[in-house]
Amino acid sequence: MLSISKRGIAMPPSPIRKLVPYAEAAKKKGIQVYHLNIGQPDIETPQPVLDAVRHSNFKVLAYSHSAGNESYRKKLTEYYQRKGITVTKDEIIVTTGGSEAILFAFMACLDAGDEVIIPEPFYANYNGFAVEAGVTVVPVTASIENGFALPSIAAFEAKITPKTKAILICNPNNPTGYLYTAAEMEALKNLVLKYQLYLFSDEAYREFCYEGTHIRAMHLKGIDEHVVLMDTISKRYSACGGRIGALVTKNKTVLDAVMKFAQARLSPPSFAQIAGEAAVDLPDNYFDAIKEEYQRRRDIIVQRLNAMPGVHCPNPGGAFYAMAALPVKDAENFCQWLLESFEYKGHTVMLAPAGGFYQTPGLGKNEVRLAYVLNQNDLHAAMDCLEAALKQYPDKTI
Amino acid sequence: MLSISKRGIAMPPSPIRKLVPYAEAAKKKGIQVYHLNIGQPDIETPQPVLDAVRHSNFKVLAYSHSAGNESYRKKLTEYYQRKGITVTKDEIIVTTGGSEAILFAFMACLDAGDEVIIPEPFYANYNGFAVEAGVTVVPVTASIENGFALPSIAAFEAKITPKTKAILICNPNNPTGYLYTAAEMEALKNLVLKYQLYLFSDEAYREFCYEGTHIRAMHLKGIDEHVVLMDTISKRYSACGGRIGALVTKNKTVLDAVMKFAQARLSPPSFAQIAGEAAVDLPDNYFDAIKEEYQRRRDIIVQRLNAMPGVHCPNPGGAFYAMAALPVKDAENFCQWLLESFEYKGHTVMLAPAGGFYQTPGLGKNEVRLAYVLNQNDLHAAMDCLEAALKQYPDKTI
Repeated sequence: MLSISKRGIAMPPSPIRKLVPYAEAAKKKGIQVYHLNIGQPDIETPQPVLDAVRHSNFKVLAYSHSAGNESYRKKLTEYYQRKGITVTKDEIIVTTGGSEAILFAFMACLDAGDEVIIPEPFYANYNGFAVEAGVTVVPVTASIENGFALPSIAAFEAKITPKTKAILICNPNNPTGYLYTAAEMEALKNLVLKYQLYLFSDEAYREFCYEGTHIRAMHLKGIDEHVVLMDTISKRYSACGGRIGALVTKNKTVLDAVMKFAQARLSPPSFAQIAGEAAVDLPDNYFDAIKEEYQRRRDIIVQRLNAMPGVHCPNPGGAFYAMAALPVKDAENFCQWLLESFEYKGHTVMLAPAGGFYQTPGLGKNEVRLAYVLNQNDLHAAMDCLEAALKQYPDKTI
Repeated sequence: MLSISKRGIAMPPSPIRKLVPYAEAAKKKGIQVYHLNIGQPDIETPQPVLDAVRHSNFKVLAYSHSAGNESYRKKLTEYYQRKGITVTKDEIIVTTGGSEAILFAFMACLDAGDEVIIPEPFYANYNGFAVEAGVTVVPVTASIENGFALPSIAAFEAKITPKTKAILICNPNNPTGYLYTAAEMEALKNLVLKYQLYLFSDEAYREFCYEGTHIRAMHLKGIDEHVVLMDTISKRYSACGGRIGALVTKNKTVLDAVMKFAQARLSPPSFAQIAGEAAVDLPDNYFDAIKEEYQRRRDIIVQRLNAMPGVHCPNPGGAFYAMAALPVKDAENFCQWLLESFEYKGHTVMLAPAGGFYQTPGLGKNEVRLAYVLNQNDLHAAMDCLEAALKQYPDKTI
């Protein structure tokens, strides 16, 4: 009998996938849906970045170097230098999105059955890449009560086994928006040194920090061999569709192994490497306006959410996500109800139920993630919807 | 201790990688190297295909649908229809190059420890994807003596075990250029039916057939559930850097599983999907001129090679590769010598030693693969080099 693989069965579907048919049905009824459920920025891709591709004049759309165009990797070293990260072009492997950097790091550093510890809630697709690599994700639970701060080091240590090979953090965090402090980063450094672990650092949202200072994993002294940076231009320049990321490390053995994975798939996409290279030359103040915009949006949703009875939303220090605890028994049912049975002035709102971001069953049942990727007016309108919805929703806890 | 994974160690490096430093050194000495070692076509990417990207006017480079843009998948159904393949847009998942289609098929249909049978010599990167998926490649040996025809069905059956889940063919073949006959395809059909196996069909070179008829795997009657087509626009439109391919199957269970892998990596590259969509509208005669050009080149190298004493090169029916047996003891040494110690009128030639295309150790030791991706004048010049080299080379068998 033909059958699919166990991993094909184990592979988790997109956590918001279940809700998509309800959103489509709502739209068919003429209801406008405010999408706060996905991290697709509405911010325009910078014109010079798109123009670099549109004005390109090569004749053959050829394979690039498997590690990415040399000119792009050289340019990226300038970008990283400005972020206080000193690397050479040979310490950068350009990947097909941040996604591929995650998969390559898992594949090169962990074997099937090995364990990676990740603070939960976490970006749901880490699970997918873990299934592909046969790696076991071990969660350490962060809590909305203290704003999703790093769990205690004791909590990490309680989960470390001989199979533990790496700790993965996303900083600032998707889905919580939490920005790890210098003290937390230092504690992680000591932990990976003590147990000889890799520190995988997903810094997709590096540019978007509103409180305090972003400590890059590569700023930590004395753990150069341990750190593998997983990066992407997707959020940085609103260039999600380009599928350009990077794996950056000073660990030569890891680089050599990753390079073999990179060679097997030949090269990262050529068009978007041109875009990525041009993006490095954007003026220094490019991010100022974007950051200001995101910060205003964050302020809107945090204020509006916390003003709703029974809602708690910690103030996220970075990224463009916020997690909120709602006074509902089951956030997934509520999100479905929003799309299926509710409207306010012809509108409704689509949220991501937080359950999909937790590994431990049952956690996050009353939580949702909101991506503030709509303009301020729309965000206010979306909050009006949510406020009205929470008044009407029957299955509340208050 | 930090260590990399076993699969990171097992991952095969690019088989031509060892020769690259020698090619670079030759170039530094001022020697012009004719590259017959890689399948990067020199043919220009069609102008309308590049123009579609250059004239695009979107504002946000957004994620596409994880299965690829709906408009592109619809368009692809027209392309496939013209090739006699009737599929719906929902039976197509756009992938990041043909590479990802191969990886997804392995991941979705086979578990770690399962076996896929592949006629050797074969495209070396199948090994890389097999290592990533933990899959064991079981070779069935084709022979240069009969032009790399499909090995006997008995030879396949001798390799089938309870762990065998799939047979993978590349048709027309890379590296041999062999075009499978209708009778061979029919025999494969009966085999996958008898043993309930998947038939993975890599048809990257579908357009480039010079003798006989290309039988698509999806033309075979009664095995719709078994066939997974791995496709790419890379060679078809000289668009290797776009990184756009497709996994096509009528097996709904496989599609559902592959879709989960596709969702984890979010989307295939957006720019090159635009290119791919425009390519479907190229006039019908677009391939005529390209095919004619490749055929002329094939004729040149086959004639020139077979005219050299002790050289045997079967006439390939398709793709843009030819395999040749040379009168040398070790083709890898010979290829290195060509770059390191030889020149003819300021030129030399880089070939791919065939050993890297065989799984069985020791096979292909006197064979090389030639990609005819240079213009006819350069091909003649490259053949002049090779002819002169074989006269001078000390370690010959004749």
